[in-house]
Amino acid sequence: MENEIARLPILRIAHGDISSTQDPVARETTLTVVLNNGDKTDLLCSPSKLEYLAVGFLCSQGLLKSKDEVRKIELDRKEGVIHIETSGTTGGFSNAESGVLPPAPGTIMSNHLRISPRQVSSLMKNFVSRSSTFKATGGVHSVALCKGENILIFSEDIGRHNAIDKVLGERLLKNIPPEECSIATTSRIPSGMLLKIARQNIPIIISKSAPTDLGVRLAEAAGITLIGFARGERMNVYSHNWRVVTDREI
Amino acid sequence: MENEIARLPILRIAHGDISSTQDPVARETTLTVVLNNGDKTDLLCSPSKLEYLAVGFLCSQGLLKSKDEVRKIELDRKEGVIHIETSGTTGGFSNAESGVLPPAPGTIMSNHLRISPRQVSSLMKNFVSRSSTFKATGGVHSVALCKGENILIFSEDIGRHNAIDKVLGERLLKNIPPEECSIATTSRIPSGMLLKIARQNIPIIISKSAPTDLGVRLAEAAGITLIGFARGERMNVYSHNWRVVTDREI
Repeated sequence: MENEIARLPILRIAHGDISSTQDPVARETTLTVVLNNGDKTDLLCSPSKLEYLAVGFLCSQGLLKSKDEVRKIELDRKEGVIHIETSGTTGGFSNAESGVLPPAPGTIMSNHLRISPRQVSSLMKNFVSRSSTFKATGGVHSVALCKGENILIFSEDIGRHNAIDKVLGERLLKNIPPEECSIATTSRIPSGMLLKIARQNIPIIISKSAPTDLGVRLAEAAGITLIGFARGERMNVYSHNWRVVTDREI
Repeated sequence: MENEIARLPILRIAHGDISSTQDPVARETTLTVVLNNGDKTDLLCSPSKLEYLAVGFLCSQGLLKSKDEVRKIELDRKEGVIHIETSGTTGGFSNAESGVLPPAPGTIMSNHLRISPRQVSSLMKNFVSRSSTFKATGGVHSVALCKGENILIFSEDIGRHNAIDKVLGERLLKNIPPEECSIATTSRIPSGMLLKIARQNIPIIISKSAPTDLGVRLAEAAGITLIGFARGERMNVYSHNWRVVTDREI
């Protein structure tokens, strides 16, 4: 994680005392994603898991559906450019979050995954303690792909959309079945975050923070269980609460 | 602020107790910005100050420089569409944050604005207490345009970029001189946030939260004083700390 953190000189002021010191700050870099040597777009992101970020970004844009479609990934870390060759991709990058296609509700609606409040609490405790860059810098969001109370994939990024794209990209390349998983996030859940996991057929999203009303309405429509403000032994279930059951019922 | 909040049915779980209740959730809406009847883009935002949002968005995109260039603003609230006619605008919307032009450092470098730690603390105390939608929903960011310890303009939005664009748009339409002002924000400061205020020649930005290293480096290059983690009597000054002086020196 060290290369995700820069140490910069600052003036620290506290109750009238002024001192010069070094402070850990989250690094931010530019990644240019080039699709099939043609269309390209720039992402501002943390400098880790860039291959996963690019792949996840293509998934979220609806330009990539399975690992089989990925033909080549070439990252030039020095230049901050990643070339991805895919098969079967039509179209290019969209700049509107709302340009993301709506989810296919049927698939998630019929999903039988369940989770208990105890699992949510245990998962989130583990999740929050994993965030080393956040602890050092306060400047990143974390997202995890989880199964029950276990974390399968964990990512951090200065942007919440990048953090989830990194997780979705890694899931795709590792062929982990999405329908058995949930997403945990430190970030708020507006519609864009919800659409990303709906597109991947992930049936549960759990956040430490708040959703928006559109996020909740889309979760309702897509068949996704949205849990917000998951902190300690507390949580709010905003949609499809039939997936939240006791440990015995799982 | 009430129309920025929706009340949704939820299941609240706390220490094993489960109850059905209504919960306030931040509203999210889509605004389509149409420029000179041609190029258009969709913003996902809170449903307040939409005219200011659209104007500020154009400023941040480098498509609008002064109030005089605004010829007509037509908001259709029901359809979620705003038409803006400008004079002198060339080009259309860019989808990359990094597509924003670099700031003109000279203008801000020569700016003589000063601020004291006491002013920062007093301002941020006032600023944080103003955020009614955040208090209700936990789902929005606040941004303010300030002069000394006073708040001139205050906006909230589900997106930090929208929140600052609303403030910048209102500043432009009200013709408030930027060089005497600072920006306060609850959000983190990556490069995109910094470039927006550099473009407007605002010399000070104060956040409750963390910057990224690129945000700090751009602030340094642009001549902007960046203060982060401004909480109570504490703050970190990341760049151009010569603007931070005692009350007597202002």
